[in-house]
Amino acid sequence: MSSAAHLYLIPSTLGNENPLTHLPAATLKKIQTITHFIVENEKSERKFLKACEIKTAQSDLNIYQLDKHDKRDDAHEFMDESTMQGKSIGLLSEAGVPAVADPGSKIVIKAHEMGIKVVPLIGASSILMALMASGLNGQQFTFHGYLPIPTEERKREIRNIEQESKQTGYTQIFIETPYRNNAMLKDLLSTCNKHTKLSIATNISQANEQCNYYRIAEWKKIKIDLNKKPSVFLLMA
Amino acid sequence: MSSAAHLYLIPSTLGNENPLTHLPAATLKKIQTITHFIVENEKSERKFLKACEIKTAQSDLNIYQLDKHDKRDDAHEFMDESTMQGKSIGLLSEAGVPAVADPGSKIVIKAHEMGIKVVPLIGASSILMALMASGLNGQQFTFHGYLPIPTEERKREIRNIEQESKQTGYTQIFIETPYRNNAMLKDLLSTCNKHTKLSIATNISQANEQCNYYRIAEWKKIKIDLNKKPSVFLLMA
Repeated sequence: MSSAAHLYLIPSTLGNENPLTHLPAATLKKIQTITHFIVENEKSERKFLKACEIKTAQSDLNIYQLDKHDKRDDAHEFMDESTMQGKSIGLLSEAGVPAVADPGSKIVIKAHEMGIKVVPLIGASSILMALMASGLNGQQFTFHGYLPIPTEERKREIRNIEQESKQTGYTQIFIETPYRNNAMLKDLLSTCNKHTKLSIATNISQANEQCNYYRIAEWKKIKIDLNKKPSVFLLMA
Repeated sequence: MSSAAHLYLIPSTLGNENPLTHLPAATLKKIQTITHFIVENEKSERKFLKACEIKTAQSDLNIYQLDKHDKRDDAHEFMDESTMQGKSIGLLSEAGVPAVADPGSKIVIKAHEMGIKVVPLIGASSILMALMASGLNGQQFTFHGYLPIPTEERKREIRNIEQESKQTGYTQIFIETPYRNNAMLKDLLSTCNKHTKLSIATNISQANEQCNYYRIAEWKKIKIDLNKKPSVFLLMA
């Protein structure tokens, strides 16, 4: 295998932002030279690559789509084929950075095991930007991903998380499918202690972004609609 | 207070990289218009701002240095003064993103309490980039900051962290002062189970960056010198 072949971890934009303004020149330059990509969604990521002004014609790109529902896993063969020719691979997430809050890390581990150098590129992460803007403890924090969907189970998990934060002082971060954000907020307000601090970061890096911070008692007085708006929740007891 | 005044959270580069290539155009454009900054280290951050090609002469910049050893805390007054004039403020960390693994979050919380809009800008975070490149669980993770310095205490904490990872499946992330990195690695190798996975990301975003992934038994066979090289440690049992 060629030592020139790298796995580049490529951040895509969080919404419809222009990658030419929202990614660093060094990241763009790297993306523009890659011809082999592993993606979550081929259609949307071809659009993203076009917006990045890649040099290769779309018809000449080699794209492997990760399919969570597909039991087969040919990524290893795709990587082997690519690297045998000394070609680097770009791993792309549907939004934000790959291998964080998405299934990309299995590709990264394969690259390590195959001896392919792994190179993370600079870009936007809604989780990290939400933490920066939260006002909560950024020196110690836990990211839980998605909480359970059924209300009672979710409320139990919220209570556990609040308790954990009280004991450790760690900021607790979690996300939700955008159309369930209002249900999540409702459960947070009805479950948490009134003094608990809650930050919500919505539409991060987009023109209408909003990073809010209040205690639960204050949140209860506020009207806010999070429906279908990508949001990150951060809690500290 | 002017509603036009924002608190911008500005990522600086992780080493000596050129911000013009390593920050997005949208981030640079914003930095270039700001005249009021809260910084960790005035000298190094004036140099960074110069490299960002800010439009204001250095002598005309208003810079407030956060001093961890200073009991007084005039940041509130500085922010009030700035915002009363409708001026936005930029918060800068010495390396990477502000308010994560540094004392910046107290400024963010003040901004929220004063009703100043908080806006995180896109840039490099060694913690997040290390996680992307780790191959470890990116769907659930905990960042612990610095572990205790005395060897016995540190080993105890390593054992706790390894146990936590085993019980929860969460990736455990921590950092160390660069001149203590080799001591940290030694303690990890002598304390952890041989099957435990350990990723180390060193000199992230710099020309000599290196993201490694092995199990503890494999690490023991490798010679690596981390002395004075900024590194992030990631562990999964």
